[in-house]
Amino acid sequence: MASNEIMTNKNSTSDIKCIILQQTFTGKRELKVTTIPKPPAPADDEILIAVKACGVSFNDVLARYGLLEDIPRPPFVPGFEFSGEVLDIGTNVTNVDRGDRVVVLTHFSAWSEQIIVKKDLVFKIPKEMSFREAAVFPVAYLTAYILLFEIGNIKPNQTLLFHSAGGGVGVALTQLSKLVPNLTIIATASPHKFEVLRAHIHYLFDHDMDYIEDVKKIAPDGIDLVLDCMAGDDCERGLALLKFNGKYIMYGTSSLLSWSVKNFFGLTKGMSNWWQNDKISCLRLFQDSKSVHGFNLIQLLLRGSNDTRSYLADTMHKIFLLYKEGKIKPVVDSVFTFEEVNNALGKLIDRKNIGKVVIEPFLQSKPEKVKKSKTNTPQGRSEDAHSSSTSGPDDDNDDKDPDDFQTNNPASNP
Amino acid sequence: MASNEIMTNKNSTSDIKCIILQQTFTGKRELKVTTIPKPPAPADDEILIAVKACGVSFNDVLARYGLLEDIPRPPFVPGFEFSGEVLDIGTNVTNVDRGDRVVVLTHFSAWSEQIIVKKDLVFKIPKEMSFREAAVFPVAYLTAYILLFEIGNIKPNQTLLFHSAGGGVGVALTQLSKLVPNLTIIATASPHKFEVLRAHIHYLFDHDMDYIEDVKKIAPDGIDLVLDCMAGDDCERGLALLKFNGKYIMYGTSSLLSWSVKNFFGLTKGMSNWWQNDKISCLRLFQDSKSVHGFNLIQLLLRGSNDTRSYLADTMHKIFLLYKEGKIKPVVDSVFTFEEVNNALGKLIDRKNIGKVVIEPFLQSKPEKVKKSKTNTPQGRSEDAHSSSTSGPDDDNDDKDPDDFQTNNPASNP
Repeated sequence: MASNEIMTNKNSTSDIKCIILQQTFTGKRELKVTTIPKPPAPADDEILIAVKACGVSFNDVLARYGLLEDIPRPPFVPGFEFSGEVLDIGTNVTNVDRGDRVVVLTHFSAWSEQIIVKKDLVFKIPKEMSFREAAVFPVAYLTAYILLFEIGNIKPNQTLLFHSAGGGVGVALTQLSKLVPNLTIIATASPHKFEVLRAHIHYLFDHDMDYIEDVKKIAPDGIDLVLDCMAGDDCERGLALLKFNGKYIMYGTSSLLSWSVKNFFGLTKGMSNWWQNDKISCLRLFQDSKSVHGFNLIQLLLRGSNDTRSYLADTMHKIFLLYKEGKIKPVVDSVFTFEEVNNALGKLIDRKNIGKVVIEPFLQSKPEKVKKSKTNTPQGRSEDAHSSSTSGPDDDNDDKDPDDFQTNNPASNP
Repeated sequence: MASNEIMTNKNSTSDIKCIILQQTFTGKRELKVTTIPKPPAPADDEILIAVKACGVSFNDVLARYGLLEDIPRPPFVPGFEFSGEVLDIGTNVTNVDRGDRVVVLTHFSAWSEQIIVKKDLVFKIPKEMSFREAAVFPVAYLTAYILLFEIGNIKPNQTLLFHSAGGGVGVALTQLSKLVPNLTIIATASPHKFEVLRAHIHYLFDHDMDYIEDVKKIAPDGIDLVLDCMAGDDCERGLALLKFNGKYIMYGTSSLLSWSVKNFFGLTKGMSNWWQNDKISCLRLFQDSKSVHGFNLIQLLLRGSNDTRSYLADTMHKIFLLYKEGKIKPVVDSVFTFEEVNNALGKLIDRKNIGKVVIEPFLQSKPEKVKKSKTNTPQGRSEDAHSSSTSGPDDDNDDKDPDDFQTNNPASNP
């Protein structure tokens, strides 16, 4: 949406800071902070926004390593979500005004100091929502909401299984699934997150162990809804665990990263060959009345029709309502500067985060030795990035609340 | 559910008439009218019913030729739906009483003069609904309703494609889809049915022609919901026509019959090898945010949990409500005696019917020469079986209404 024209060697007063993904002559892909010219005035249907905070998701990791489909040719500005303040609007824009605090979904281009976007996926944020909370809201909650309530159509008394319970979408799924009466929630996560997650999820399993037999004991009839952000072996496991008449939804391919690395080094011996043969039988689905769905928010942002974008916008408004009612609350795991973007991605790659990771253009970098590693705290947040007291002028203190993992409102179905 | 113990050589006064599927010593499968002992008194949760009329569906054709999964070993009594009068109830039965007019969904055993069934899929029929209408109601309307409104979750302004528009489910789909505002309805059918169907479906195509290019012209962005009762090549076509973010639901495998015949005679040259390789790529579904569903009512009746059976029952009540509101009306194509069951199946195999075919235990057979072939009438019914004036004591005149294909009520979403 924003111009992707990158001019790395210019640094005038009319330039702005951004992160670009570039490719070296040897083919190496790397993230780099640089400057690009300020965007021009917005066209009729466009909005110019000063970015305050950007969400980082696993799709950014996959894009970084070239493992996402339809990514632009480097150099380009990555990032799918950000919050900020409206600087200027085109003549046809009526949904926001100059000075409004907004959050935006975009197909790349988010990691910049300023950005021009089309008006239809720009949302005013509630006054009680901080820029940091807003920046991590769209991808995680939109995905989780659509998975559970739209495609998944989850009902009371059913059984739900999902992975990466400590990740951004995982935390959103955990919070939203509490709105469904008498749901049995089964999830996988890294063991060091169990202490935090145990209070919110009925059955937790180490993702790296074979969880199938244990899950079968809990749900002998099978699982009603399997939400899979991993793909690979977890696709086969998910389908195997599915109840007669159940639904499997693939919404991410995060295990592609480790598979690619292992494949590059010839280490896939003993792993299934799913990535070369990801096929399922239509007749088998028919015999079992099962469903296999794909949900790919990034592709929807790129290729979705106006109807699709309206649908995403309508859904965002429903989710804001849940936020205002206190039923959900974004969890910020840690905040990094643009210059620390590799550390931010590293948190996701190492599965250290509980909740979402944020990068901010104006946060001041701190020396490495200040950082502590305390990911596994009951607060569901890490302090190995900047503490709120050192996070600069845009700090809005959203990682101070120890109860921020799960709101304690009575369960009710949205 | 009813006892499948077949005693073909007995014919005492305590015997009842039924149709059995038997297998000869040479392996030939055939349908035969015979007698079996009267059922015993119903157990606590059971109901004994005197059968008035039975619906015939394409699943009966597939069962006849051994092309359905999990069918009993012959001899057994076929049939999945029937209407009748309650003769006796078990001590735990409260949903119906002796003398009630009911309709029943069952996993086989329907084609009998009397039958004992479990209580949970027995429904009282509205007083304005005839036994014939009732007998063809459950399979067609339950399937169509779940496909459109539950799994398909069809929305106004979307585009729908389905096959066999003149079949039992096809007619139900046509009627129910009229309840969704501004839906674009595309369907395939046999050309001789076009005259009848044209008034109710926006775009009609000959199923035996390659309809893909024509459909693409009507819906350049693709189809939102493809409902496929054929499988085989239509599965590939359906997936190819699907809109980004669209849904494909396989709910039948009727093309398996012609494929099996052609395969037996070595005539499949030029046909796709779908029946040997019915695979789809999970990653492709993920990239396109598409869904592939199976819906198999017969398997749900056999293997569905109590929850599943409750769900089917709840859905039946919703559909009865639509009937009472005059929004849907079953179409009876033709009525046959038990003795004419092969003619009844032949109607479906030859795709001659518009609406449902009924068989009745007490209808008197008529000489062959009385039959006329007038399938292609605007009334959406055939007169090549018994006319209502010759159909015996159980005739309740439901094939007399010339407007019975489509009710003319204002569109509204259920």
